[in-house]
Amino acid sequence: MNKDLLLQHLRTVPDYPMKGIMFFDVTTLFKRGDCLKEIVDDICEIYKDKGITKVVGIESRGFVAAAAVAARLGAGFVPVRKPGKLPAATIAEAYVKEYGKDTIEMHTDSIDPGDVVLVHDDILATGGTASAAVRLVRKFSPKSVYANFIIDITDIPRSCPIPSDVEVTSLLQLGEKE
Amino acid sequence: MNKDLLLQHLRTVPDYPMKGIMFFDVTTLFKRGDCLKEIVDDICEIYKDKGITKVVGIESRGFVAAAAVAARLGAGFVPVRKPGKLPAATIAEAYVKEYGKDTIEMHTDSIDPGDVVLVHDDILATGGTASAAVRLVRKFSPKSVYANFIIDITDIPRSCPIPSDVEVTSLLQLGEKE
Repeated sequence: MNKDLLLQHLRTVPDYPMKGIMFFDVTTLFKRGDCLKEIVDDICEIYKDKGITKVVGIESRGFVAAAAVAARLGAGFVPVRKPGKLPAATIAEAYVKEYGKDTIEMHTDSIDPGDVVLVHDDILATGGTASAAVRLVRKFSPKSVYANFIIDITDIPRSCPIPSDVEVTSLLQLGEKE
Repeated sequence: MNKDLLLQHLRTVPDYPMKGIMFFDVTTLFKRGDCLKEIVDDICEIYKDKGITKVVGIESRGFVAAAAVAARLGAGFVPVRKPGKLPAATIAEAYVKEYGKDTIEMHTDSIDPGDVVLVHDDILATGGTASAAVRLVRKFSPKSVYANFIIDITDIPRSCPIPSDVEVTSLLQLGEKE
């Protein structure tokens, strides 16, 4: 894993989306072929022997690596979206996030009981969205659920932790206040 | 190209997002490993010798295949997003779409003059979003621009056609009113 390559090209945007927040902007990684490849290689290396059948991407920055990893692993890609964005029947999960409240949805036919699911988002902060996504995925009773993030922000309170029996990995562990 | 596999698993949702519209729901393709692979294989087969350096995905269903294709081709992925979603400096382009007016944005540092760009979205309908995305990409003066869609809806007016000097491809050509 070449963390230096990713750290070198990751953009930080101060005071976004609000004063005092240091935002990690992964678009400067995605736009580089070498960094996108590094991200996809690294995630696939972690999960290649886990029998992943579905990669769930959280709207919408989480779609990017999730889709590329799904295609590489021969798995399917499933979106977790904000309310009203999915055209067919959905199930929903409400949660508290860093900057307010929200709800996420998945199609009711998106996961099967035999699936081994990897939930992915670009950034893990308070854990609000990610833990809601894990709860939502578990409503389908899949065989197992893993969670992965490009960046784990380590110095803010994990107010909504991902259930402790879910194996969580991340490529970079960064402090927002460094 | 195995069109039958894709046609067999594509979901159509009547009266979405409004009465009289037959919506083609690609999530039933993305969720199947075989269909996602088919889509990515097919797009990469078309563009593998074009020297693509950036794949531009249109928010947010367009992110899925665009990201997977970028990773496979060794190119970078660049998002086209709705206003206010990108954290750094952006350029914008307004357009008329099938169900109203809208604006799209890209980061000002997302494309370089040496880039060969593939613009991708899941569906080509009136062409409003796609032609705005092509105009936006051309503001960066890249070496060349291509456009690809999973589905080209052939029986509605192409009120905002993509510039005729842009080579456009699609995997499925379908009528909304069939």
